[in-house]
Parts: sequence; C-alpha cells; structure tokens
Amino acid sequence: MTFEIYLMRHGLAGQFGDYEDDAIRPLTEEGVKKTQKVAQRLKDLGIKFDRVLTSPYTRALQTAIVLQSIGLVEDLETLDPLQPEGDPLAVITHLETLRQTDQHIAIVGHEPDLTQLASHLISGNDQTNLVLKKAGIIGLTSPIEEGLIGKCQLFWLAPPRLLLG
Amino acid sequence: MTFEIYLMRHGLAGQFGDYEDDAIRPLTEEGVKKTQKVAQRLKDLGIKFDRVLTSPYTRALQTAIVLQSIGLVEDLETLDPLQPEGDPLAVITHLETLRQTDQHIAIVGHEPDLTQLASHLISGNDQTNLVLKKAGIIGLTSPIEEGLIGKCQLFWLAPPRLLLG
Repeated sequence: MTFEIYLMRHGLAGQFGDYEDDAIRPLTEEGVKKTQKVAQRLKDLGIKFDRVLTSPYTRALQTAIVLQSIGLVEDLETLDPLQPEGDPLAVITHLETLRQTDQHIAIVGHEPDLTQLASHLISGNDQTNLVLKKAGIIGLTSPIEEGLIGKCQLFWLAPPRLLLG
Repeated sequence: MTFEIYLMRHGLAGQFGDYEDDAIRPLTEEGVKKTQKVAQRLKDLGIKFDRVLTSPYTRALQTAIVLQSIGLVEDLETLDPLQPEGDPLAVITHLETLRQTDQHIAIVGHEPDLTQLASHLISGNDQTNLVLKKAGIIGLTSPIEEGLIGKCQLFWLAPPRLLLG
C-alpha cells in the first residue's frame, strides 16, 4: 500500500510583530487567495487526503481550512509538534501510527520545520537543503513497509509559481 | 551572483533492447511532443540557459536539442560523464568551472544518475531519495561562493504532469 505525505507551508501571512502573539498572526487576503488557487490545482490533479495534520497556529490552521473547504479533505487534526520550532521526529512518530489506516496525509506547518521534516524522511538526517515557499508543496511517498526515516522518496517540490502556471 | 542548475531527464524513449546500441535509442514521437511542451512551459516561466550540458546518448541529445530549438539556449555541450552510469562528481567538477562565467545551466541526462547528482549537491552524499520522471525537472541554486557539494538548495522537483497542468 502506497503511503503519500504532502507537506504544505502556510500561505502569505501578516507582518511578524504586528500581532502580540505570533500564534494568532493570520493569512493576508492575498495569502488566502493564492492558497485557494493552489488547493484547487491539487484538486484538479485528482488529489484527496484522508487527513490533514496542521500546526495550531492561525496562519497554518487557516491554510488547512482552505484545503478542507475546497473539498480536499474532511478531517483536520491540530498537532503541537508542528508548531514553529517544533519536533519533526514526533511528527514522524505520529505518521507511523497513521500509516496503519491512512494512505494520503497532508501536513500544514512552518519553515524551516517542514523542510527539516522532509530531510529526515528522504535522507535520514536534517542536512538536506530544500526550499519551500509559502503555499508551496512537497510530495513524498513511502514505498516500503518499514520505518519512514530515510526511506521516503521526494517526487514533488513546487512553489505556487510552478503549480499555478 | 546566483548560480542555477536545472537537471532534466530525457523524454520517453524507444524500448530498451530494440536497438543494437543503447546509445542510439531515440525518443518516441510522444516523447518529443511532451518534451516540447515542458520546454515551452520553462520558456513561459521566463527561464533561459547560458548553456546546456547533455549526455551524448541520442535520447538525451534529442531532449537538449528540443530545449535549443524552442529558444531556451544557444550552446549545447556533450559531456561524457553524463552517460548512463556516469560520473556525477566529474560533472560537479565541470560545473565548478562553468560557475566562473555562467549563471544558468541545464543538464540533460539519465536516471538514477541525475538524482544522484542532485543528492550530492544538496546533501553532500548520494543517499537522498529523489524521484525524477522522464522529461521532469529538478531546479537547484548555489547561494554561496564555495564548493557546490552539499551547499546547493533544491527549489523545484517536478514531473511533466505537474509542469503542464
């Protein structure tokens, strides 16, 4: 059974420092629109998720809700290790559990956490240099039934510019 | 000065074994068409190359000629270390030299050689799992003026399906 993991960085958000608590900094109007376009492109590509795991921070949660509202997924789940400066290895442990039931997972979060997570999955360490733009996507697949770390394959890495044509 | 490297796998080619010498196995008609579409998309994205380095094998050379004929580049250069089971580190040595004069290089070649080359550039070893489909593209940038190995950043990885919408 193929297990696919899509990592999506939250869309363009308000200015850092304009909000007392960074956790409630929202997407801008432009950020919402571009995220909607990316979500629509994913839908047009025939993608559907069994579950979206998201950082509880507002800008990530809003991004996850865009995926949900466009019909890409029913179930959202916030996951504290997806917070900024979170814990990629705890996220992977959670993915190991979900692999028992789900086939297509989306993860919405922050940088540099998401590319570090991808690096662990494709290289077994956090030393691989990947660039993930806001509302950009990384697609990973785990072809074999063993641990995920260092075993996944990266088949997509795209900024909105490439996704939207 | 930003140095960008685009790795492109040759398009869909004739059946392995149908040709006495694998080096002369050509693209199929469908392979040429899809490669042309990908090249046009790159052009629409405003990309232009100072130089294309290509494997001398027919299916790669044809792919490079498509890039040239669509106006993405003037100069083609065949490079023996880009042959199948070639020498990624020799390719990198050549890139180091070109970095003195060129800013945007395309490389056309084969798998798994191209993803091994990308792995060396972004991780410093060949242990990173990347998937590159036929006529697919990997985009890398080297942000700093030191050795390329392990210092480049991967900002694109896309199969034709993602590029062509």
